[in-house]
Amino acid sequence: MTEHFPEAVLAILDAPEFATLATIQPDGQPQLSVVWFARDGDDLLISTVQGRRKYLNLVADPRATVLVYPKANPYTYVEVRGTVTLTTAGGRELIDRLNAEYTGGDRYTGDDGSDNVRVVVRLTPTKVIVC
Amino acid sequence: MTEHFPEAVLAILDAPEFATLATIQPDGQPQLSVVWFARDGDDLLISTVQGRRKYLNLVADPRATVLVYPKANPYTYVEVRGTVTLTTAGGRELIDRLNAEYTGGDRYTGDDGSDNVRVVVRLTPTKVIVC
Repeated sequence: MTEHFPEAVLAILDAPEFATLATIQPDGQPQLSVVWFARDGDDLLISTVQGRRKYLNLVADPRATVLVYPKANPYTYVEVRGTVTLTTAGGRELIDRLNAEYTGGDRYTGDDGSDNVRVVVRLTPTKVIVC
Repeated sequence: MTEHFPEAVLAILDAPEFATLATIQPDGQPQLSVVWFARDGDDLLISTVQGRRKYLNLVADPRATVLVYPKANPYTYVEVRGTVTLTTAGGRELIDRLNAEYTGGDRYTGDDGSDNVRVVVRLTPTKVIVC
């Protein structure tokens, strides 16, 4: 059921573009947030924190959808629908890696002084739509 | 149940920023697309076309969520969850108005030569989240 990304969208997915992540609220309404992400082969990786709304929603229903468009051309976009797995393994490494790619910083400091437990959200696509 | 937009987000909502619109697929998975929008008091207005995926989803389930962030600062964003009404009245005027605001053009020509029936999607918020 895994779908591969078309060659034409790899440039968008491999650039540090911002994405919108949709999860499903307990009542079925979509919940949206802006996220950093990285492509790992046929999957997308997103970082979150245990206890956050999107985390709780994904634990309850692992279906998620991501939309990415190039900042320079919002008229071209990629919609990725799929299912996620959640793990704390590599959680710190992922947020540091994303931080480096999006900000150029060495280390993500947004969790400093907090009890945040970083989670790797791995989205495996079931459908990829290019517009 | 209508929620008002906080004063602080009006500048984001009144600028021609791109938004991501989430509708609900028949199987419950969020469906995302990039849209132009305009604020009309406490509502957001979006244009679509009869028969499109988002239109069909909204007919079946009127719940929708919109996320907007300023291109210049994706770290601040507004998530608007609500319920839509759909009407063809004013459909052509809305797409022309949005086209003017986003492109500076006089008249939207993307529907020329097609049988597109333009629809006004009016999103009335039930929850507004500012991050």
